[in-house]
Amino acid sequence: MKKARVAYSGAIHDAVEFEGRIKLDDGRIVGEEEVVWLPPVQVRTVFALGLNYADHAAELAFKAPTEPLVFLKGPNTFIGHRGQTFRPHDATFMHYECELAVVIGKQARKVKQEDAYHYVAGYTVANDYAIRDYLENYYRPNLRVKNRDTCTPIGPWLVDAKDIDDPMNLTLRTYVNGQLTQEGNTKDMIFNIPFLIEYLTSFMTLNKGDIILTGTPVGAVNVEVGDEVVTEIEQIGRLVNTIVAKPMI
Amino acid sequence: MKKARVAYSGAIHDAVEFEGRIKLDDGRIVGEEEVVWLPPVQVRTVFALGLNYADHAAELAFKAPTEPLVFLKGPNTFIGHRGQTFRPHDATFMHYECELAVVIGKQARKVKQEDAYHYVAGYTVANDYAIRDYLENYYRPNLRVKNRDTCTPIGPWLVDAKDIDDPMNLTLRTYVNGQLTQEGNTKDMIFNIPFLIEYLTSFMTLNKGDIILTGTPVGAVNVEVGDEVVTEIEQIGRLVNTIVAKPMI
Repeated sequence: MKKARVAYSGAIHDAVEFEGRIKLDDGRIVGEEEVVWLPPVQVRTVFALGLNYADHAAELAFKAPTEPLVFLKGPNTFIGHRGQTFRPHDATFMHYECELAVVIGKQARKVKQEDAYHYVAGYTVANDYAIRDYLENYYRPNLRVKNRDTCTPIGPWLVDAKDIDDPMNLTLRTYVNGQLTQEGNTKDMIFNIPFLIEYLTSFMTLNKGDIILTGTPVGAVNVEVGDEVVTEIEQIGRLVNTIVAKPMI
Repeated sequence: MKKARVAYSGAIHDAVEFEGRIKLDDGRIVGEEEVVWLPPVQVRTVFALGLNYADHAAELAFKAPTEPLVFLKGPNTFIGHRGQTFRPHDATFMHYECELAVVIGKQARKVKQEDAYHYVAGYTVANDYAIRDYLENYYRPNLRVKNRDTCTPIGPWLVDAKDIDDPMNLTLRTYVNGQLTQEGNTKDMIFNIPFLIEYLTSFMTLNKGDIILTGTPVGAVNVEVGDEVVTEIEQIGRLVNTIVAKPMI
Protein backbone atom coordinates (compact mmCIF):
# COMPACT_ATOMS: atom_id res chain seq x y z
CA MET A 1 0.00 0.00 0.00
CA LYS A 2 1.08 3.57 -0.70
CA LYS A 3 0.13 6.25 1.82
CA ALA A 4 0.33 10.03 1.69
CA ARG A 5 -0.59 13.13 3.64
CA VAL A 6 -2.21 15.87 1.60
CA ALA A 7 -4.04 19.17 2.07
CA TYR A 8 -7.33 19.39 0.18
CA SER A 9 -10.26 21.76 0.44
CA GLY A 10 -9.07 23.41 3.63
CA ALA A 11 -8.09 20.33 5.62
CA ILE A 12 -5.24 17.87 6.04
CA HIS A 13 -6.00 14.27 5.12
CA ASP A 14 -4.34 10.91 5.29
CA ALA A 15 -4.68 9.28 1.90
CA VAL A 16 -3.85 6.17 -0.08
CA GLU A 17 -3.13 5.54 -3.74
CA PHE A 18 -6.18 4.34 -5.65
CA GLU A 19 -5.92 3.48 -9.35
CA GLY A 20 -3.40 6.25 -10.02
CA ARG A 21 -5.46 8.76 -8.04
CA ILE A 22 -5.65 9.75 -4.39
CA LYS A 23 -8.27 8.35 -2.03
CA LEU A 24 -8.75 10.63 1.00
CA ASP A 25 -9.57 9.34 4.47
CA ASP A 26 -13.17 10.53 4.01
CA GLY A 27 -13.59 8.39 0.89
CA ARG A 28 -13.33 11.13 -1.74
CA ILE A 29 -11.10 10.37 -4.72
CA VAL A 30 -9.13 13.28 -6.19
CA GLY A 31 -6.42 13.86 -8.76
CA GLU A 32 -2.79 14.25 -7.72
CA GLU A 33 -2.66 17.82 -9.01
CA GLU A 34 -5.72 18.86 -7.01
CA VAL A 35 -3.97 18.53 -3.64
CA VAL A 36 -1.01 20.03 -1.84
CA TRP A 37 1.32 17.17 -0.97
CA LEU A 38 2.80 17.16 2.52
CA PRO A 39 5.67 15.01 3.76
CA PRO A 40 4.11 11.51 3.94
CA VAL A 41 5.12 11.22 7.60
CA GLN A 42 4.75 14.04 10.13
CA VAL A 43 8.39 15.07 10.50
CA ARG A 44 9.76 14.48 13.97
CA THR A 45 13.37 13.28 14.12
CA VAL A 46 15.30 12.88 10.89
CA PHE A 47 18.75 11.34 10.68
CA ALA A 48 20.79 11.78 7.53
CA LEU A 49 23.89 10.01 6.27
CA GLY A 50 26.91 11.78 4.87
CA LEU A 51 29.11 10.10 2.28
CA ASN A 52 27.29 6.76 2.31
CA TYR A 53 28.11 5.86 -1.31
CA ALA A 54 31.81 5.50 -2.07
CA ASP A 55 31.50 7.01 -5.56
CA HIS A 56 29.86 10.15 -4.13
CA ALA A 57 32.52 10.48 -1.43
CA ALA A 58 35.18 10.28 -4.15
CA GLU A 59 33.33 12.93 -6.18
CA LEU A 60 33.61 15.31 -3.21
CA ALA A 61 37.28 14.32 -2.76
CA PHE A 62 36.66 12.63 0.58
CA LYS A 63 37.87 9.24 1.71
CA ALA A 64 34.99 6.82 2.23
CA PRO A 65 34.06 6.74 5.93
CA THR A 66 34.86 3.80 8.20
CA GLU A 67 31.79 4.35 10.36
CA PRO A 68 28.42 5.94 9.59
CA LEU A 69 28.47 9.75 9.48
CA VAL A 70 25.06 10.69 10.82
CA PHE A 71 23.60 14.11 11.48
CA LEU A 72 20.17 15.49 12.39
CA LYS A 73 17.89 17.69 10.31
CA GLY A 74 15.22 20.08 11.65
CA PRO A 75 11.53 20.14 10.63
CA ASN A 76 11.92 23.60 9.02
CA THR A 77 13.73 22.08 6.07
CA PHE A 78 11.02 19.62 4.90
CA ILE A 79 8.37 20.09 2.21
CA GLY A 80 6.26 17.68 0.16
CA HIS A 81 5.98 16.49 -3.44
CA ARG A 82 5.48 19.21 -6.07
CA GLY A 83 6.74 21.81 -3.59
CA GLN A 84 8.93 24.82 -4.21
CA THR A 85 12.44 24.97 -2.80
CA PHE A 86 14.08 28.35 -2.24
CA ARG A 87 17.55 28.69 -3.67
CA PRO A 88 19.47 30.68 -1.01
CA HIS A 89 20.97 33.99 -2.17
CA ASP A 90 24.34 33.05 -0.69
CA ALA A 91 24.59 29.70 -2.50
CA THR A 92 27.04 29.27 -5.36
CA PHE A 93 26.70 25.48 -5.44
CA MET A 94 23.35 23.93 -4.62
CA HIS A 95 23.35 20.18 -5.27
CA TYR A 96 20.34 17.85 -5.25
CA GLU A 97 20.79 14.47 -3.54
CA CYS A 98 18.39 11.64 -4.36
CA GLU A 99 18.09 9.43 -1.27
CA LEU A 100 16.11 6.43 -0.09
CA ALA A 101 14.28 7.45 3.11
CA VAL A 102 13.61 4.70 5.66
CA VAL A 103 10.67 5.28 8.03
CA ILE A 104 10.81 3.54 11.41
CA GLY A 105 7.62 1.69 12.41
CA LYS A 106 8.07 1.05 16.14
CA GLN A 107 10.38 1.87 19.00
CA ALA A 108 13.79 0.27 18.43
CA ARG A 109 16.66 -0.33 20.85
CA LYS A 110 19.67 -2.64 20.59
CA VAL A 111 18.38 -4.14 17.36
CA LYS A 112 20.54 -6.71 15.59
CA GLN A 113 21.00 -6.51 11.83
CA GLU A 114 19.05 -9.72 11.25
CA ASP A 115 15.99 -8.21 12.99
CA ALA A 116 16.31 -4.70 11.60
CA TYR A 117 13.65 -4.88 8.88
CA HIS A 118 10.99 -5.69 11.51
CA TYR A 119 11.35 -2.08 12.65
CA VAL A 120 10.85 -0.51 9.21
CA ALA A 121 7.35 0.80 8.39
CA GLY A 122 8.18 1.76 4.84
CA TYR A 123 10.14 3.85 2.38
CA THR A 124 9.87 7.12 0.55
CA VAL A 125 12.05 9.36 -1.62
CA ALA A 126 13.96 12.39 -0.32
CA ASN A 127 15.94 15.08 -2.07
CA ASP A 128 18.42 16.25 0.53
CA TYR A 129 19.74 19.44 -1.14
CA ALA A 130 23.17 20.59 0.02
CA ILE A 131 24.61 24.11 -0.11
CA ARG A 132 28.17 23.09 -0.86
CA ASP A 133 29.68 26.54 -0.21
CA TYR A 134 29.67 25.84 3.53
CA LEU A 135 30.81 22.24 3.54
CA GLU A 136 34.17 22.90 5.12
CA ASN A 137 33.61 23.87 8.72
CA TYR A 138 34.76 22.66 12.10
CA TYR A 139 31.27 21.35 12.83
CA ARG A 140 30.17 19.22 9.92
CA PRO A 141 27.82 19.52 8.30
CA ASN A 142 27.16 23.15 9.04
CA LEU A 143 23.45 23.97 9.35
CA ARG A 144 23.91 26.27 6.35
CA VAL A 145 24.70 23.20 4.23
CA LYS A 146 21.87 20.95 5.32
CA ASN A 147 19.19 22.82 7.26
CA ARG A 148 17.85 25.56 4.98
CA ASP A 149 14.09 26.16 4.88
CA THR A 150 12.32 24.10 2.17
CA CYS A 151 15.53 22.38 1.08
CA THR A 152 14.45 18.78 1.77
CA PRO A 153 11.50 17.68 -0.38
CA ILE A 154 10.21 14.25 0.68
CA GLY A 155 7.51 11.97 -0.74
CA PRO A 156 5.21 11.55 -2.51
CA TRP A 157 4.24 8.20 -1.00
CA LEU A 158 5.17 6.16 2.02
CA VAL A 159 5.38 2.68 0.49
CA ASP A 160 4.77 -0.22 2.90
CA ALA A 161 7.92 -2.16 3.70
CA LYS A 162 6.22 -5.45 2.87
CA ASP A 163 5.66 -4.28 -0.72
CA ILE A 164 9.39 -3.91 -1.40
CA ASP A 165 11.25 -7.18 -2.01
CA ASP A 166 14.77 -5.86 -1.68
CA PRO A 167 15.33 -2.25 -0.57
CA MET A 168 19.06 -2.83 -1.03
CA ASN A 169 18.69 -3.23 -4.79
CA LEU A 170 16.77 -0.22 -6.09
CA THR A 171 17.82 2.17 -8.85
CA LEU A 172 17.95 5.87 -7.93
CA ARG A 173 17.76 8.53 -10.66
CA THR A 174 17.66 12.31 -10.78
CA TYR A 175 16.45 14.35 -13.74
CA VAL A 176 16.98 18.11 -14.06
CA ASN A 177 14.58 19.64 -16.60
CA GLY A 178 14.06 16.17 -18.04
CA GLN A 179 17.76 15.29 -18.43
CA LEU A 180 19.10 12.32 -16.48
CA THR A 181 21.96 13.65 -14.31
CA GLN A 182 22.34 11.09 -11.51
CA GLU A 183 21.98 7.33 -11.49
CA GLY A 184 22.92 4.81 -8.83
CA ASN A 185 21.69 1.80 -6.93
CA THR A 186 21.03 1.31 -3.21
CA LYS A 187 23.20 -1.82 -3.33
CA ASP A 188 26.22 0.51 -3.42
CA MET A 189 25.59 2.00 0.02
CA ILE A 190 28.65 1.67 2.26
CA PHE A 191 26.46 1.10 5.34
CA ASN A 192 23.22 -0.65 4.43
CA ILE A 193 19.84 -0.33 6.13
CA PRO A 194 20.24 -3.20 8.65
CA PHE A 195 23.71 -1.93 9.58
CA LEU A 196 22.42 1.62 10.12
CA ILE A 197 19.54 0.45 12.33
CA GLU A 198 21.88 -1.72 14.41
CA TYR A 199 24.37 1.15 14.65
CA LEU A 200 21.90 3.85 15.71
CA THR A 201 20.01 1.65 18.16
CA SER A 202 23.27 0.49 19.74
CA PHE A 203 23.53 3.86 21.53
CA MET A 204 20.10 5.52 21.31
CA THR A 205 16.41 4.82 20.80
CA LEU A 206 14.74 5.11 17.42
CA ASN A 207 11.02 5.91 17.67
CA LYS A 208 8.01 5.35 15.44
CA GLY A 209 8.02 7.92 12.66
CA ASP A 210 11.75 8.61 12.83
CA ILE A 211 13.28 8.82 9.37
CA ILE A 212 16.74 7.84 8.13
CA LEU A 213 17.98 9.44 4.89
CA THR A 214 20.49 6.93 3.61
CA GLY A 215 22.79 9.08 1.46
CA THR A 216 23.22 9.72 -2.24
CA PRO A 217 25.33 8.21 -5.04
CA VAL A 218 27.62 10.00 -7.49
CA GLY A 219 26.22 12.66 -9.84
CA ALA A 220 25.73 15.88 -7.88
CA VAL A 221 25.26 18.93 -10.10
CA ASN A 222 24.31 22.50 -9.39
CA VAL A 223 20.68 23.60 -9.80
CA GLU A 224 19.40 27.07 -10.61
CA VAL A 225 16.18 29.02 -10.14
CA GLY A 226 13.53 27.69 -12.51
CA ASP A 227 14.87 24.14 -12.65
CA GLU A 228 12.51 21.22 -12.24
CA VAL A 229 14.25 18.47 -10.31
CA VAL A 230 12.81 14.95 -10.25
CA THR A 231 14.30 12.40 -7.86
CA GLU A 232 13.04 8.92 -8.51
CA ILE A 233 13.56 5.55 -6.86
CA GLU A 234 12.45 2.33 -8.47
CA GLN A 235 9.27 0.91 -6.83
CA ILE A 236 9.18 3.79 -4.31
CA GLY A 237 8.20 6.91 -6.20
CA ARG A 238 8.94 9.98 -8.25
CA LEU A 239 9.37 13.20 -6.29
CA VAL A 240 8.99 16.46 -8.24
CA ASN A 241 10.44 19.74 -6.99
CA THR A 242 10.93 23.21 -8.44
CA ILE A 243 13.69 25.67 -7.54
CA VAL A 244 12.49 29.23 -6.95
CA ALA A 245 14.12 32.50 -5.89
CA LYS A 246 14.07 33.16 -2.18
CA PRO A 247 12.36 36.40 -1.19
CA MET A 248 14.83 38.93 0.23
CA ILE A 249 12.84 39.27 3.47
CA MET B 1 6.04 34.39 35.64
CA LYS B 2 7.49 30.89 35.85
CA LYS B 3 5.80 28.13 33.85
CA ALA B 4 6.25 24.37 33.86
CA ARG B 5 4.82 21.20 32.37
CA VAL B 6 4.25 18.40 34.82
CA ALA B 7 2.58 15.00 35.05
CA TYR B 8 0.24 14.62 38.03
CA SER B 9 -2.43 12.09 38.88
CA GLY B 10 -2.45 10.48 35.45
CA ALA B 11 -2.47 13.59 33.28
CA ILE B 12 -0.11 16.20 31.83
CA HIS B 13 -0.67 19.76 33.03
CA ASP B 14 0.61 23.21 32.28
CA ALA B 15 1.49 24.83 35.56
CA VAL B 16 2.84 28.02 37.11
CA GLU B 17 4.86 28.70 40.22
CA PHE B 18 2.70 29.77 43.18
CA GLU B 19 4.30 30.69 46.50
CA GLY B 20 7.02 28.06 46.14
CA ARG B 21 4.52 25.42 45.06
CA ILE B 22 3.01 24.37 41.74
CA LYS B 23 -0.39 25.61 40.57
CA LEU B 24 -1.85 23.28 37.93
CA ASP B 25 -3.99 24.49 35.03
CA ASP B 26 -7.09 23.12 36.79
CA GLY B 27 -6.41 25.26 39.87
CA ARG B 28 -5.03 22.56 42.18
CA ILE B 29 -1.88 23.46 44.10
CA VAL B 30 0.67 20.69 44.68
CA GLY B 31 4.18 20.28 46.03
CA GLU B 32 7.16 20.08 43.69
CA GLU B 33 7.94 16.53 44.81
CA GLU B 34 4.41 15.31 44.08
CA VAL B 35 4.75 15.70 40.32
CA VAL B 36 6.90 14.35 37.51
CA TRP B 37 8.55 17.33 35.87
CA LEU B 38 8.60 17.38 32.07
CA PRO B 39 10.68 19.67 29.86
CA PRO B 40 8.97 23.08 30.32
CA VAL B 41 8.51 23.39 26.56
CA GLN B 42 7.35 20.53 24.33
CA VAL B 43 10.64 19.70 22.60
CA ARG B 44 10.56 20.31 18.86
CA THR B 45 13.78 21.71 17.39
CA VAL B 46 16.76 22.24 19.64
CA PHE B 47 19.94 23.98 18.55
CA ALA B 48 23.05 23.68 20.71
CA LEU B 49 26.29 25.61 20.71
CA GLY B 50 29.70 24.03 20.84
CA LEU B 51 32.63 25.86 22.42
CA ASN B 52 30.75 29.09 23.12
CA TYR B 53 32.84 30.07 26.16
CA ALA B 54 36.53 30.64 25.47
CA ASP B 55 37.63 29.13 28.80
CA HIS B 56 35.76 25.88 28.05
CA ALA B 57 37.22 25.69 24.54
CA ALA B 58 40.69 26.05 26.05
CA GLU B 59 39.90 23.32 28.59
CA LEU B 60 39.16 20.93 25.73
CA ALA B 61 42.34 22.11 23.94
CA PHE B 62 40.42 23.75 21.10
CA LYS B 63 40.91 27.18 19.63
CA ALA B 64 37.92 29.44 20.27
CA PRO B 65 35.66 29.44 17.20
CA THR B 66 35.36 32.41 14.84
CA GLU B 67 31.75 31.66 13.99
CA PRO B 68 29.01 29.90 15.96
CA LEU B 69 29.30 26.09 16.01
CA VAL B 70 25.70 24.96 16.05
CA PHE B 71 24.27 21.46 15.94
CA LEU B 72 20.84 19.89 16.38
CA LYS B 73 19.63 17.59 19.16
CA GLY B 74 16.79 15.05 18.90
CA PRO B 75 13.76 14.79 21.23
CA ASN B 76 14.93 11.38 22.54
CA THR B 77 17.63 13.03 24.61
CA PHE B 78 15.44 15.35 26.74
CA ILE B 79 14.03 14.75 30.22
CA GLY B 80 12.73 17.07 32.95
CA HIS B 81 13.76 18.29 36.40
CA ARG B 82 14.45 15.57 38.98
CA GLY B 83 14.81 13.02 36.19
CA GLN B 84 17.24 10.13 35.90
CA THR B 85 19.95 10.15 33.27
CA PHE B 86 21.43 6.86 32.09
CA ARG B 87 25.21 6.73 32.07
CA PRO B 88 26.08 4.82 28.88
CA HIS B 89 28.08 1.60 29.33
CA ASP B 90 30.57 2.70 26.70
CA ALA B 91 31.32 6.07 28.33
CA THR B 92 34.64 6.68 30.04
CA PHE B 93 34.15 10.43 30.30
CA MET B 94 30.66 11.80 30.83
CA HIS B 95 30.70 15.55 31.46
CA TYR B 96 27.80 17.71 32.62
CA GLU B 97 27.38 21.09 30.90
CA CYS B 98 25.33 23.79 32.60
CA GLU B 99 23.75 25.97 29.88
CA LEU B 100 21.31 28.83 29.57
CA ALA B 101 18.46 27.68 27.29
CA VAL B 102 16.74 30.38 25.22
CA VAL B 103 13.16 29.62 24.13
CA ILE B 104 11.91 31.33 20.96
CA GLY B 105 8.49 32.99 21.25
CA LYS B 106 7.46 33.63 17.65
CA GLN B 107 8.56 32.90 14.10
CA ALA B 108 11.84 34.68 13.37
CA ARG B 109 13.54 35.40 10.05
CA LYS B 110 16.29 37.89 9.16
CA VAL B 111 16.25 39.34 12.67
CA LYS B 112 18.78 42.04 13.53
CA GLN B 113 20.64 41.90 16.84
CA GLU B 114 18.86 45.01 18.13
CA ASP B 115 15.46 43.32 17.67
CA ALA B 116 16.49 39.84 18.80
CA TYR B 117 15.03 39.90 22.32
CA HIS B 118 11.54 40.55 20.89
CA TYR B 119 11.65 36.96 19.67
CA VAL B 120 12.56 35.40 23.02
CA ALA B 121 9.72 33.91 25.09
CA GLY B 122 11.88 33.03 28.05
CA TYR B 123 14.71 31.06 29.57
CA THR B 124 15.34 27.81 31.34
CA VAL B 125 18.30 25.70 32.49
CA ALA B 126 19.74 22.78 30.51
CA ASN B 127 22.37 20.21 31.38
CA ASP B 128 23.75 19.15 28.00
CA TYR B 129 25.77 16.06 29.02
CA ALA B 130 28.57 15.07 26.63
CA ILE B 131 30.13 11.64 26.18
CA ARG B 132 33.65 12.86 25.54
CA ASP B 133 34.99 9.49 24.32
CA TYR B 134 33.52 10.13 20.88
CA LEU B 135 34.36 13.81 20.46
CA GLU B 136 36.92 13.35 17.71
CA ASN B 137 35.10 12.30 14.59
CA TYR B 138 34.81 13.53 11.05
CA TYR B 139 31.23 14.63 11.70
CA ARG B 140 31.21 16.72 14.84
CA PRO B 141 29.66 16.30 17.22
CA ASN B 142 28.97 12.65 16.74
CA LEU B 143 25.47 11.62 17.85
CA ARG B 144 27.15 9.38 20.43
CA VAL B 145 28.52 12.50 22.12
CA LYS B 146 25.37 14.59 22.23
CA ASN B 147 22.25 12.57 21.42
CA ARG B 148 22.04 9.79 24.00
CA ASP B 149 18.65 8.97 25.52
CA THR B 150 17.89 10.97 28.72
CA CYS B 151 21.20 12.87 28.53
CA THR B 152 19.75 16.39 28.35
CA PRO B 153 17.77 17.36 31.45
CA ILE B 154 16.00 20.71 31.01
CA GLY B 155 13.92 22.85 33.37
CA PRO B 156 12.43 23.16 35.90
CA TRP B 157 10.78 26.45 34.90
CA LEU B 158 10.38 28.50 31.77
CA VAL B 159 10.97 32.00 33.14
CA ASP B 160 9.34 34.83 31.16
CA ALA B 161 11.85 36.93 29.25
CA LYS B 162 10.41 40.14 30.72
CA ASP B 163 11.32 38.98 34.22
CA ILE B 164 15.05 38.82 33.43
CA ASP B 165 16.81 42.18 33.34
CA ASP B 166 20.01 41.05 31.68
CA PRO B 167 20.30 37.47 30.41
CA MET B 168 23.89 38.26 29.42
CA ASN B 169 24.95 38.66 33.04
CA LEU B 170 23.85 35.57 34.95
CA THR B 171 25.99 33.27 37.07
CA LEU B 172 25.96 29.56 36.14
CA ARG B 173 26.96 26.94 38.70
CA THR B 174 27.12 23.16 38.81
CA TYR B 175 27.25 21.08 41.98
CA VAL B 176 28.07 17.37 42.05
CA ASN B 177 26.89 15.73 45.28
CA GLY B 178 26.74 19.18 46.85
CA GLN B 179 30.27 20.25 45.83
CA LEU B 180 30.62 23.28 43.54
CA THR B 181 32.51 22.08 40.43
CA GLN B 182 31.65 24.63 37.72
CA GLU B 183 31.11 28.38 37.88
CA GLY B 184 30.83 30.92 35.09
CA ASN B 185 28.81 33.83 33.82
CA THR B 186 26.77 34.25 30.64
CA LYS B 187 28.66 37.50 29.97
CA ASP B 188 31.61 35.33 28.89
CA MET B 189 29.81 33.77 25.92
CA ILE B 190 31.77 34.25 22.70
CA PHE B 191 28.56 34.69 20.68
CA ASN B 192 25.81 36.26 22.78
CA ILE B 193 22.05 35.74 22.47
CA PRO B 194 21.31 38.59 20.03
CA PHE B 195 24.23 37.51 17.83
CA LEU B 196 23.04 33.89 17.79
CA ILE B 197 19.47 34.87 16.84
CA GLU B 198 20.72 37.14 14.05
CA TYR B 199 23.10 34.42 12.85
CA LEU B 200 20.56 31.57 12.78
CA THR B 201 17.76 33.65 11.24
CA SER B 202 20.11 34.96 8.55
CA PHE B 203 19.87 31.60 6.76
CA MET B 204 16.86 29.75 8.24
CA THR B 205 13.61 30.26 10.14
CA LEU B 206 13.37 29.91 13.89
CA ASN B 207 9.88 28.91 15.06
CA LYS B 208 7.90 29.34 18.26
CA GLY B 209 9.10 26.79 20.81
CA ASP B 210 12.52 26.31 19.24
CA ILE B 211 15.26 26.19 21.86
CA ILE B 212 18.87 27.39 21.72
CA LEU B 213 21.32 25.89 24.22
CA THR B 214 24.00 28.54 24.49
CA GLY B 215 27.06 26.55 25.58
CA THR B 216 28.89 25.95 28.84
CA PRO B 217 31.83 27.61 30.64
CA VAL B 218 34.95 25.95 32.01
CA GLY B 219 34.68 23.25 34.68
CA ALA B 220 33.66 20.00 33.03
CA VAL B 221 34.24 16.95 35.22
CA ASN B 222 33.28 13.33 34.89
CA VAL B 223 30.15 12.05 36.63
CA GLU B 224 29.46 8.52 37.83
CA VAL B 225 26.41 6.39 38.58
CA GLY B 226 24.80 7.59 41.80
CA ASP B 227 25.90 11.22 41.46
CA GLU B 228 23.39 13.99 42.01
CA VAL B 229 24.12 16.82 39.58
CA VAL B 230 22.57 20.25 40.12
CA THR B 231 22.90 22.85 37.37
CA GLU B 232 21.80 26.27 38.49
CA ILE B 233 21.48 29.65 36.80
CA GLU B 234 20.88 32.83 38.75
CA GLN B 235 17.24 34.04 38.45
CA ILE B 236 16.37 31.13 36.12
CA GLY B 237 16.34 27.99 38.21
CA ARG B 238 17.97 25.00 39.79
CA LEU B 239 17.81 21.78 37.78
CA VAL B 240 18.36 18.53 39.68
CA ASN B 241 19.41 15.32 37.95
CA THR B 242 20.60 11.88 39.07
CA ILE B 243 22.94 9.58 37.17
CA VAL B 244 21.81 5.95 37.04
CA ALA B 245 23.09 2.76 35.41
CA LYS B 246 21.66 2.06 31.98
CA PRO B 247 19.89 -1.29 31.70
CA MET B 248 21.78 -3.70 29.43
CA ILE B 249 18.75 -4.20 27.16
